[in-house]
Formats: sequence, C-alpha cells, structure tokens
Amino acid sequence: MTIAEQMLAMGRRARAGAHALAAVSGAARAKALAAMPAALDAVRDRLREANERDVADAQAAGLDLPLLERLRITDKVFTYMGKRLREAAALPDPVGRVLEGQVRPSGLRVEKVSVPLGVIGIIYESRPNVTTDAASVCLKSGNAVILRGGSECLRTNLVLAEAMVTAATANGLPADAIQIVDTPDRAAVGEMLRLEGLIDVLIPRGGKSLIQRVASESRIPVIKHYDGICHQYLAPDADVAMACAVVVNSKCERVEVCNALETLLVDAAGAVRLLPPVVAALREQEVECRGCAEARAIVPDLVPATEEDWATEYLAPILSIRVVPDLAAAVAHINHYGSGHTDGIITNRLDWADSFVATVDSASVLVNASTRLSGGGDYGMGAVVGISTDKLHARGPVGPNELTSTKWIARGNGHLRV
Amino acid sequence: MTIAEQMLAMGRRARAGAHALAAVSGAARAKALAAMPAALDAVRDRLREANERDVADAQAAGLDLPLLERLRITDKVFTYMGKRLREAAALPDPVGRVLEGQVRPSGLRVEKVSVPLGVIGIIYESRPNVTTDAASVCLKSGNAVILRGGSECLRTNLVLAEAMVTAATANGLPADAIQIVDTPDRAAVGEMLRLEGLIDVLIPRGGKSLIQRVASESRIPVIKHYDGICHQYLAPDADVAMACAVVVNSKCERVEVCNALETLLVDAAGAVRLLPPVVAALREQEVECRGCAEARAIVPDLVPATEEDWATEYLAPILSIRVVPDLAAAVAHINHYGSGHTDGIITNRLDWADSFVATVDSASVLVNASTRLSGGGDYGMGAVVGISTDKLHARGPVGPNELTSTKWIARGNGHLRV
Repeated sequence: MTIAEQMLAMGRRARAGAHALAAVSGAARAKALAAMPAALDAVRDRLREANERDVADAQAAGLDLPLLERLRITDKVFTYMGKRLREAAALPDPVGRVLEGQVRPSGLRVEKVSVPLGVIGIIYESRPNVTTDAASVCLKSGNAVILRGGSECLRTNLVLAEAMVTAATANGLPADAIQIVDTPDRAAVGEMLRLEGLIDVLIPRGGKSLIQRVASESRIPVIKHYDGICHQYLAPDADVAMACAVVVNSKCERVEVCNALETLLVDAAGAVRLLPPVVAALREQEVECRGCAEARAIVPDLVPATEEDWATEYLAPILSIRVVPDLAAAVAHINHYGSGHTDGIITNRLDWADSFVATVDSASVLVNASTRLSGGGDYGMGAVVGISTDKLHARGPVGPNELTSTKWIARGNGHLRV
Repeated sequence: MTIAEQMLAMGRRARAGAHALAAVSGAARAKALAAMPAALDAVRDRLREANERDVADAQAAGLDLPLLERLRITDKVFTYMGKRLREAAALPDPVGRVLEGQVRPSGLRVEKVSVPLGVIGIIYESRPNVTTDAASVCLKSGNAVILRGGSECLRTNLVLAEAMVTAATANGLPADAIQIVDTPDRAAVGEMLRLEGLIDVLIPRGGKSLIQRVASESRIPVIKHYDGICHQYLAPDADVAMACAVVVNSKCERVEVCNALETLLVDAAGAVRLLPPVVAALREQEVECRGCAEARAIVPDLVPATEEDWATEYLAPILSIRVVPDLAAAVAHINHYGSGHTDGIITNRLDWADSFVATVDSASVLVNASTRLSGGGDYGMGAVVGISTDKLHARGPVGPNELTSTKWIARGNGHLRV
C-alpha cells in the first residue's frame, strides 16, 4: 500500500469508528478513560524500552538537549499522563448537553444538543504526553482521533496508543477510536491533510510554520493555535507590590510558552512610581528589559525597543516595555500589536477594569492576575488540546466541550409548515 | 482609487466600526434596529424608484422571470423587511451572555462571555430582503457588516443601506457598522476575499459554485451553506395519513429551497401499505416519483431511479424513493448520500425515533414533522443569515447567537501561577 492508500484506509476506519462511538454512552467512554492509567502501567516496561530507543536514536541524530528532554517519559511525566486521563474521565460528559430548546406555539418541541464533531486529526511534535492528553480530550467528547506525532517519538507513541486502545476496547469502544499514524514518512502528513470528508477538524500543535502549512494546504477546518504576544497594562493606580509580582510571574514562571508576558504597558501617570521597581524585579530574574524612549527617560539603561519588538513573541527572558498616555492607548496598542491571546490590567479601579475587559479583543482578558493563569487547567476545564487564537468555533482553551458540534432535534406529531 | 484600495479602505472602516460597536449597549443596538422600519418608510419613494430602475435594467439585460421576481420589492416584501427588523430588535441581546464560569479554588473568578465576532462579510445574490435581514442579524450581535449583493440590485441595496445607516447613527451607532460594496465591478468580490484580518468571517449566500469559490479562494473563515439533500424515512409502523401529509408538505410546500425533501426512504416492512397512497398523494401535487427496483415492484409505473438520484438535490418537483430493509439501512443511506442538512423519521415507536435521532449525523433531525420546519423561524431563532452545513462553529440555522465569539475573563487579586 502506498502512503496515500494507508492514510485513506485510516481515515475510513476513523469515520467508521466515529459512527460506532456515536452509539457508546458517556459512562462507557468515561470508564475507558479511567481504565487507561492501569493499561499504561501494564505496558510500563515496554514503554520505557521504546522511549529509551527513541531518545537514543534522537540523540544519535543530533537532536538538541531541550528537544531530547521533551521526548523523555520521566516518572514525573508518566504520573502526569495517568493523572490527566483520570481527570478527563471525571469531567462531565460534553455530549448530549441540551444547549437550548423550547416548545413552539405549534407544539413542535425543538432542542439543540451537543454531539461529537466526528473525527479529529491531531498533528504534533515531540512531547509524548500530547498523545495521551489529546486522545483523552477527543475520546471524552465522543470523537475518533487520528494522531500524528513526531517521527522521533514513534515507538513511544505506538506503545501509548496500544495501551489506550486496549482499555478502550475492553470497555466496548471501537478499536479505531484511537489511531496513530504508524509510519515516520513525512508524506503521511500531506496525505492526512487531504482526508476531507473523513477528518472533520485538524488541530496542529507546534510552531507557526506547521500551523500555517496545515491551514493553507488543507480544506479541512483547522483549529489554530498561533502566537501569544501577551500584555500587562499597569494602570496609574496599580499597586507596586502586586505589579512587580504579577509581571514577574507572567514573564518568568515559564518563558517559552504562549501565555508568557511579552510586552509591558505602563500608564504615563504611574510610570515614574511603577517602572523602576518593576524593572528591578525583572532584572533580579535576569530578564532583559527593552524600553521605548519614555521608558528610558525613567530607567535610562533599558535596551532601546524598536517597532519590531512590539510585534515579537520572544519566548525568552526578554520583555519590551512601553509607556502609554492612557488606558485607551494601551487598548489600542494591544489590539494592534497583540495576537488576541491573553492580556491583563493591574488596577483597583472598577471603571478601568471594566473598560479594559470590554475593549481588549482577546481570547482571555485578566484583571489583577498573571497571564500564566490563562489556560484550561486554571479555568477549570481539565485537559485541553490547545489554546485557540481563532474567533470561530473555539476561542481560548480547547477542551472537551469545544470538540463538540450541535444537532437540532425537532419532535412533532405530524407537524407541517403552513 | 483602485477596486483593491476601495475594498481595503472599506475593510479598515469596518474594523474601526466594529471596535466602536463594542462600546455600544445592546439596548442601543436594539433601538437602532427598531428605528429601521420607519427609516425605510421615509425613503419608500426613492426605494421604489431605485428598485424599478434595477428591475428595468435587469429585464433589458434579459434576466429570466423568476430572477426578476426575486429582485422586486413588492409591498409584501417591504412589509416583511420591516417585520424582520422589528423581530430582530425584540430578540434578547446575544452579546454578554455568561456561558460558563466559576470561582476557582484559588479565588480567581473566571467566566466565559459571548462577544461579537467583529466584521462579517456577506456575499449574496439578487433578493434585496437579504440586505435588511443579514444586516439586522449582524448588528443585533454587535458586528460590523460588509454587504456585497448582486450587481443587478445595487441601486435598491444602496437605498436600503442608507436608510439603515440613518437609523443606526441616529441611535449612537457608528456609520461604518453597515457598509455596502457600492461598485457593480465583479473584481470587488475577489478583493473582499483578500481582506484577511479585516473581515472575521465570510458568509456566502448563493449557489454551490459561489460558496466553493469563496471557501477555496479566501483564507478568511467561511460559514458555508451547501446542499440540502433531505430525507424522510417511513418506519414500518408509520401512520398512512401522517406519512402522506408530512411527505407532501416536505416535498411540495416549496420545492426550490434547501430544506425541501429530495429522497423518501420506506421500510420494506411497511412499503406495500405505505408506498401506494404516498405516491398517489405526491402525484396529486404533480411530483415526478422515481423509485428503486423494490419500490417499482410495488408501484410499477415509477420512473427508475439511478445511483445518481440518491445524490441529487433536485430543487424541483421530483422525488427519489428507495425501499430499505430496516432503520439501520435508512440511517446508513442518509449518512452516505445525504448532505447532513435535515432528515426525518415518521414513526410512533420511541425506540426507533431515539435510534434515528442518535445516529443520523445531520444538522437537523425531525420526528413526525415536515423537513420544511427546519429553520430559524420555526426553531424560534428569529432572523437568520443562512443554514450552515458546517460542523464547526455553527451548524444549522445561523442566527444572532451564532455570530458571536467568546472571551474568557479572569478576575483576581494579584493571583499568580504557582
């Protein structure tokens, strides 16, 4: 079989699996998820061996250390995988929620209920915990999933998928509910993008180039997860201690992730009071601070920031700082340069907080909280497959509810259109 | 200015209009919509004149009669336009609904609220009532709209838009909330499709080729409204009188629309009892009935149906009829040949109705009701801009709620990620 034929066959099995899943109860899906940690335990030795071989090969191929570390299933990662599966099992069933409904004057009873999307294709890179996380969110929401992980992680992923399928089938779920692309051939991705009608939605998890490729090459709808150019705006009344703590946490708690802070906006009316201690706190964490001319007038030894800095997602210990004349200017800056991911304000004034929340056009808007809190876990959604920067379908963290579509059901008694 | 420059300027005005609309209350939007019927009355004479000139030009250009009729704003159409605007005004505000939320264990208060999508581009053909209908749904949901109607209707649409803008600005809404592409040049559509970042979603209303062009040419997300290959399945126990009435209404109430019936599936166990009277009732309405071999064994003078018939949206007084061995076969036929639009079952058995509803993968599934009842009006949604056959974002009728996105808001008191 060619790669194209293999992928087509996989797509057809997934579609059949999705149809079979439609007849499986939420309780059975939850039971299958709850059984997965034990199934992973049962293959622990084989998993360790497969993972060690993947890591060794990647090392031999010259993969650099941070990528190697992501590949490795440490005991901590293994425990985390099981925890997330159990959490997904415990979440309420996202399928069958009655979202709206009424009895019409004619007596026709209409309701809109949530239903699985069908087949979800996930394309991702090295971390093997994405395999279990993504599969759990898809299965929780009654979807069949086709997983295409990094080729350097294939042996590991195959063992993970096998264990999950064992737990799934033991609980009455179709084996094809979870499939993993079992060839390292890169052509498989191209073929996957062509499975229109067999895959209902693609979720690429990785760099911008991967997402752009998927979005431009495929006619299948894509849930996109682009840059996080996140801001905090310090209002004139911002508390210094809170500003320092929240800015440092937003920037430094983890620098390479999408909800890390990239640009700090400081209101001119509070800049002299706020900027020196905030910069000092950042420098204590070895953050390089780059500032506009007004910021450098207050803290002279800031690195000069250029126009390019405002549009840059550093994913590194660098922060750009701009002094803005007022809240409206801060919002205008965010809506112009930001990526609509996560933006916050530090203030104790209700009118400023309300105005900021209403006018910043982002997936997440925070008041007096770290940008790092924007995400499925801290919002109480449990496992997520990513954070969408799209406005349609899903915006922000993509959890089980976001992987459902809807169905209108109308029940009558011979009702006609008159 | 070139067409490209004109469209770019229009897109920028729309984006600014959308930002301005974000600061306008739902009450003001409703007031503006409620003021529009009077604004239309105030331009009634100019509207009549513009419409007569459009119709005369179209007639001279050789447009055929059904298209000419669609173009004409009769008194009935004019009254209908006002009625739909008043209905939209009276609907609850789709913006600012708290969709979910909780206080997290940390004390962080999170909520997900509905927000406008931003800028909506609508590309449609001749009916001028789409101009008022679509603008009302967009404005109701706090979105700015760019309307591109048929060039043969341009004079009419310009007067309609002018009246709506008058009512909008008189109630504090930005003038650029409603814009109409004011050139008949077909190149304007191509330029509109390129306004990525300025238009948030495109809604093409028209033939399949228009929708396919928009979806393939533009990188802007598209809400698609494809075929309605709709089915009714007569279960073995179907009541003859109800079957005749519902099938005839589904097929004949209006043949050229997307929720009209195209294929009738009859269970083999009831076919001898049901098929002759149903076919007789359809023939009384001058419907051409095409049947499979089993159907022709019962009603010999049916036109033979071919494989192609099962995949055809006739939009005409033609119906294909297939005898199926059981409910599962009916569902398999629908999921294979159907377009996921609207499908129904006629039965009095709860288990069959439940199984059909659960396994048919369509936007609307009906029990004992005409397919013609599938739509925003009969579902109580008021005005809609179309019926989506997509599974993502919006499935089925697209009303004001479907033209919103969401925003997560998190309120803390110096909350950090730990």
